[in-house]
Amino acid sequence: MTYTLILLRHGESTWNAKNLFTGWVDVPLSEKGTAEAVRGGTLLTDAGLLPDVVHTSLLRRAITTANLALDAADRHWIPVKRHWRLNERHYGALQGKDKKQIRDEFGEEQFMLWRRSYDTPPPEIELGSEFSQDADPRYTGEPIPRTECLKDVLERALPYWDAEVVPDLRAGKTVLVAAHGNSLRAIIKHLDGIDDDTIAGLNVPTGIPLVYELGEDLRPTVPGGKYLDADAAAAAIAAVANQGR
Amino acid sequence: MTYTLILLRHGESTWNAKNLFTGWVDVPLSEKGTAEAVRGGTLLTDAGLLPDVVHTSLLRRAITTANLALDAADRHWIPVKRHWRLNERHYGALQGKDKKQIRDEFGEEQFMLWRRSYDTPPPEIELGSEFSQDADPRYTGEPIPRTECLKDVLERALPYWDAEVVPDLRAGKTVLVAAHGNSLRAIIKHLDGIDDDTIAGLNVPTGIPLVYELGEDLRPTVPGGKYLDADAAAAAIAAVANQGR
Repeated sequence: MTYTLILLRHGESTWNAKNLFTGWVDVPLSEKGTAEAVRGGTLLTDAGLLPDVVHTSLLRRAITTANLALDAADRHWIPVKRHWRLNERHYGALQGKDKKQIRDEFGEEQFMLWRRSYDTPPPEIELGSEFSQDADPRYTGEPIPRTECLKDVLERALPYWDAEVVPDLRAGKTVLVAAHGNSLRAIIKHLDGIDDDTIAGLNVPTGIPLVYELGEDLRPTVPGGKYLDADAAAAAIAAVANQGR
Repeated sequence: MTYTLILLRHGESTWNAKNLFTGWVDVPLSEKGTAEAVRGGTLLTDAGLLPDVVHTSLLRRAITTANLALDAADRHWIPVKRHWRLNERHYGALQGKDKKQIRDEFGEEQFMLWRRSYDTPPPEIELGSEFSQDADPRYTGEPIPRTECLKDVLERALPYWDAEVVPDLRAGKTVLVAAHGNSLRAIIKHLDGIDDDTIAGLNVPTGIPLVYELGEDLRPTVPGGKYLDADAAAAAIAAVANQGR
């Protein structure tokens, strides 16, 4: 018995395109991102991979990506579950800031520490500020963060993984998780047992389904899984690595 | 204590535009229908009516309408529930047929009987035929119909209403039901206690939210509810009544 998990990072957002730190700011897909989402669904159809249930974050770039991909795959009607624990990493005080400007202001070393270190979060966002979510009704009563490093993301994503995703997998369902660069990196770190240093070099491209076959122990039968368009994934991973340059 | 229910008929579909009997055939929104769905969301925002949960059918014209309206209202992140019991009336052997052609072939009386009588279903659809859903994976194991009159729709929709929608209302949630002309007419008949003859004359326009305030007994405080754009609703109702002419 094996289980099938599909990870899908949202298509390009308007702020990816503008090179801004986004985090929990709820920006829409760009036109390119919309096309990427639809193509993600076509890749699922072509591979004969039909999700039985979808899990998304509470952010529209992941929600819309799931909607468009599932519609393209004729699976728009499957059950949907959403949770903030699948949200992108909270970028703290960097949210809304230009990546290049932050790099110029704080230097390459600090910039890369905030972007890629496993356990150094950016400064906390000020409550009530323009890009803070403290007054957002979707998080009312939830223990939401004011900044996060990848370690924090993993710690808040895992309870959702264990409580909601694993039972769907164990029930034999093909599970689609439509989420974000860092919430997916957290899940991948957990699945593949990647160490704290190595995870810094791992990027997830937008809009290309990453398929894991998991064994009874919920470990990948093939480490790293398999992108449905391996060439496009390799090219996109190289492009992500150059952000902020 | 009152409860808030919002009913939303999907925007125009490509087959509404072509004047074909649609039923359970899963056609997409037309360009006009897409715009109607977005406008439905804008009307919700303008009225300050923010759904806490959405219920849809398993058909993409209702699902996409809900997705677009909720995104426009900044409520794309709310919980979603879907069920075939909210589907459009199954039009039996008429599915995929041209309305005018059926009217010409069978005459005005038979045509209106199939379209509007409370308890006369069209002939059953042939299993395995082009517009039948018997092999559709979304209905596997479900006791789905091969044709329906409005009475049948009411009888299969009510168990879902009682089991899934009522508990959300009783929990104080603002509930959005994004569905179809006939599944919404069935719910309206039930809520407003409309008799079997009078319901024939009731049409629900596409894309305009219909808001019901319900009392403790789940009866409308204002019979018939209130359309968020009353003028547009009146004009659209007149247009629906002329279909097939």
